[in-house]
Amino acid sequence: MKLYDGGRAPNPRRVRIFFAEKGLELPELVPVDIGRKEHLTPEFARINPMKRLPVLLLDDGTALAETIAICRYLEGLHPEPSLFGRDPMEQALTEMWNRRVELGLFSSVSAVFRHSHPSMAELEDQVPEWAEASREQIDDYLLILDLQLAGNRFVCGDRLTVADITAGIAIDFMKPSRVPLSEDLVNIRRWHGELSARPSWKA
Amino acid sequence: MKLYDGGRAPNPRRVRIFFAEKGLELPELVPVDIGRKEHLTPEFARINPMKRLPVLLLDDGTALAETIAICRYLEGLHPEPSLFGRDPMEQALTEMWNRRVELGLFSSVSAVFRHSHPSMAELEDQVPEWAEASREQIDDYLLILDLQLAGNRFVCGDRLTVADITAGIAIDFMKPSRVPLSEDLVNIRRWHGELSARPSWKA
Repeated sequence: MKLYDGGRAPNPRRVRIFFAEKGLELPELVPVDIGRKEHLTPEFARINPMKRLPVLLLDDGTALAETIAICRYLEGLHPEPSLFGRDPMEQALTEMWNRRVELGLFSSVSAVFRHSHPSMAELEDQVPEWAEASREQIDDYLLILDLQLAGNRFVCGDRLTVADITAGIAIDFMKPSRVPLSEDLVNIRRWHGELSARPSWKA
Repeated sequence: MKLYDGGRAPNPRRVRIFFAEKGLELPELVPVDIGRKEHLTPEFARINPMKRLPVLLLDDGTALAETIAICRYLEGLHPEPSLFGRDPMEQALTEMWNRRVELGLFSSVSAVFRHSHPSMAELEDQVPEWAEASREQIDDYLLILDLQLAGNRFVCGDRLTVADITAGIAIDFMKPSRVPLSEDLVNIRRWHGELSARPSWKA
């Protein structure tokens, strides 16, 4: 196995943290320099036509793309500790919360970064109006997460799941996206502090 | 069980088709009128704080939101026929393709509809620049899908999966979004014709 990696970009980091939380060693890393547009080359498009990172290249030549697909593959091979849920109900609720924090919070923070950060002007056809509209959504998504964490140690209850990794990375990504995290969100702050202290978070 | 349903909207339809492909009868439907903003009321926000449809209300009171989370719950309870894959490799590839067609094609077509269709002006803070940028992405996503279908009867191979439902609904949604489907995409046209002829597609 080889992992086509994108350094500090959030999706590659989600996969590296997932490996660490599974207690698995990272495979050989193939660095792909997003700043130098290496993911937009014809060579890389043959590996992933969506031109996105990360990609896990399996020994049989299969190129597995999409962060959550890679994580799910690892979960299938190494069920313990479960990060996607242990029965149909846990699996459904983990999927629900992972999607809520990914398609809501994480994708809005990403949109702010991609469509407003000066360093992305070279890589994106930036739509500043979309950055602004996305920024306005973030408070609502943060409030939903904060309320969920008011009654739960982790996003889905008393055990860490893939939804914590997605949500935690979204919170981390607010800093370079220049979106402040309100002091009032005490549950997010407590949970994010605990998450950031885990050894996996250095991945 | 009760299904909070949204009529002709694409996500409720994905779930109804999934029930049909599983050979399961639909539970009691609770119609929620999106045009009359019934999903934006405080009452509905208590069921789903994301204010989106569909929601599957379980007998124990759990409100399960997010289309794919509902489908995954049904897959867990009724594994046959599998629509999410039968082993870790199939599951990973199904997740990859479902995400490619959902986060690429379907979300771009949705963005065109939500941010440019006159009927949505009441429901959305429309960003016309985002509709335009999303429209420009669609051809690339269609080409990736067409190439995949050149060598496969269904999106993930010789069996129908949840990725076909997502992709098929995205193609259907192009019509109200006023995005034309090129005659050149012969593989998509062949596959979509076959899909539309299935009894489930009337759901």
